[in-house]
Amino acid sequence: MKTLTIPEIACFFKANDHFLILTHRRPDGDTLGCAAALCRGLRSLGKTAAILENPQLTDKYRPYLEGLTVPSFETGMVTVSVDVASLDMLAKNAGFPVRLLLDHHGTNPGFAEEGLIVPEAAATGELIFDVLEAMGVTLDQATAEAIYVAVSTDTGCFRYSNTTAKTLRVAAACLAAGAETYPINQEMFEKRRFARLRIDAYITEHVVFYAEGRLAIAAIPLEVEKNCGVTEDDMESVSTFARNIEGVCLAVTMRTLPDGQTKLSVRSAPGYDAAALCALFGGGGHKAAAGATLPMAQDEAKLAVENAFRQLGYL
Amino acid sequence: MKTLTIPEIACFFKANDHFLILTHRRPDGDTLGCAAALCRGLRSLGKTAAILENPQLTDKYRPYLEGLTVPSFETGMVTVSVDVASLDMLAKNAGFPVRLLLDHHGTNPGFAEEGLIVPEAAATGELIFDVLEAMGVTLDQATAEAIYVAVSTDTGCFRYSNTTAKTLRVAAACLAAGAETYPINQEMFEKRRFARLRIDAYITEHVVFYAEGRLAIAAIPLEVEKNCGVTEDDMESVSTFARNIEGVCLAVTMRTLPDGQTKLSVRSAPGYDAAALCALFGGGGHKAAAGATLPMAQDEAKLAVENAFRQLGYL
Repeated sequence: MKTLTIPEIACFFKANDHFLILTHRRPDGDTLGCAAALCRGLRSLGKTAAILENPQLTDKYRPYLEGLTVPSFETGMVTVSVDVASLDMLAKNAGFPVRLLLDHHGTNPGFAEEGLIVPEAAATGELIFDVLEAMGVTLDQATAEAIYVAVSTDTGCFRYSNTTAKTLRVAAACLAAGAETYPINQEMFEKRRFARLRIDAYITEHVVFYAEGRLAIAAIPLEVEKNCGVTEDDMESVSTFARNIEGVCLAVTMRTLPDGQTKLSVRSAPGYDAAALCALFGGGGHKAAAGATLPMAQDEAKLAVENAFRQLGYL
Repeated sequence: MKTLTIPEIACFFKANDHFLILTHRRPDGDTLGCAAALCRGLRSLGKTAAILENPQLTDKYRPYLEGLTVPSFETGMVTVSVDVASLDMLAKNAGFPVRLLLDHHGTNPGFAEEGLIVPEAAATGELIFDVLEAMGVTLDQATAEAIYVAVSTDTGCFRYSNTTAKTLRVAAACLAAGAETYPINQEMFEKRRFARLRIDAYITEHVVFYAEGRLAIAAIPLEVEKNCGVTEDDMESVSTFARNIEGVCLAVTMRTLPDGQTKLSVRSAPGYDAAALCALFGGGGHKAAAGATLPMAQDEAKLAVENAFRQLGYL
């Protein structure tokens, strides 16, 4: 893939027309926010542009794409993927080539003819902001809100460690351009699915603490997940719940896999090594976040983890 | 009070020395972050400056004030209050006058000789940033982190509706100056007291929904509060918990006062009027957030609120 600079990408958009913007599978705020902002920006310059419908689009993001999508690729369209890490991750592709890509995943193999991959960017939204600026697009409210959705969702509303000064400067520019961020923040970050709250409640009532509360084990039986009605999406961030209890330095969250094995997700603060704990069970990961699968039921797994705590000198 | 501009305030600090910085009762991140940043900034210019010890300082903020405090006012000190809305709100004052104030509370009567009140600022931290810049202070990591604490805590990490482009630009400058914001975000926004999680769990298990989940009543008995071991601080944001359940447009949270009366806190989305509901009980507030006190126990209060739902056409 030929790597382009931001000014070169601006020239590419100015020199072409009839754009089709592509998003990734299980679309998130970054890919959809980028697509919406780029589409609106191109249209504001008089270009023809649309976003390829994503079959996995959820209600949360639907309003941002209203009036911007088309059902299929047509010959002659100039394809541009945003925040798509690999060809496999394209939501829909009937074999047409990707002309340009804009992304921030360091693992991107560069599957387009031309493009730009900036791994230091917290969100691809930061690149889209730069590209629109280089094209001389004046951000209107809808475009600014789309960029805000992109940069805020990929950084947990600026709380994650990937957040940089640049991320916040882009967000500031969105507010200055008229983005109404309060309702976005409510919808994206404050709203909680009730099913997930029921799991949180279960953990609160059943978590077991060790070492004056520095260690915690939260075991969630499969029937509790079923009774609460949670989806895999709901369960995605559950392993940070016990870790965020005041005083907890290392938390082990247990779920039961369909085959009856126990899956551990371990999260830890500096001074506690999640990867070392998981390595004792053949698992792996990072110091702060690791995982392992134990060929046993939760009760037995709990005893094994308690032994591991002792082995590492945590207990 | 004589209102000064930012350049005039910079001149004031340059022209004086031996500063004593004053914070407010029940100190929060804004007053303490401002005090720490101003104290460090003044010291970096060779001035003598200290923060008056605040007897209500909590552990969460203690690290930011290390090495910056003195126990008492001494004659000749130039007193400067930061984020203090009124003389009554001063944490400690043995009758000495306040020379200069910097604040963002629109209700501030202007109790100092000179100062600046900017109600549009989301946090007094924004003013401190401007003052330090006007004095030519180069932000070091500790000063940048103190300002970040100020602006992030007063905006719920940039989620509240008071957040402006300026707030985010100040935060961006803090990151650019080397502020490590991830551990701050963890400590200030992600950590949860276990006592408070127990209340959340109680609400999840006992909340009652009406009108297909658009209305919710969460009643918290006094003995539950006691059993969970919550403080008033823990309970401060509890009224938003039920409001943030997906689908809920209006949530009523009930607590029992020491005298046995029931206190309602109502939070609502656009289209639902919290103030109108509370007005039916002689209470008041805003459309999105209001309160009332009912001279009855929770069970009776629940029936009264259900009637109010019907009266307003919500049920």
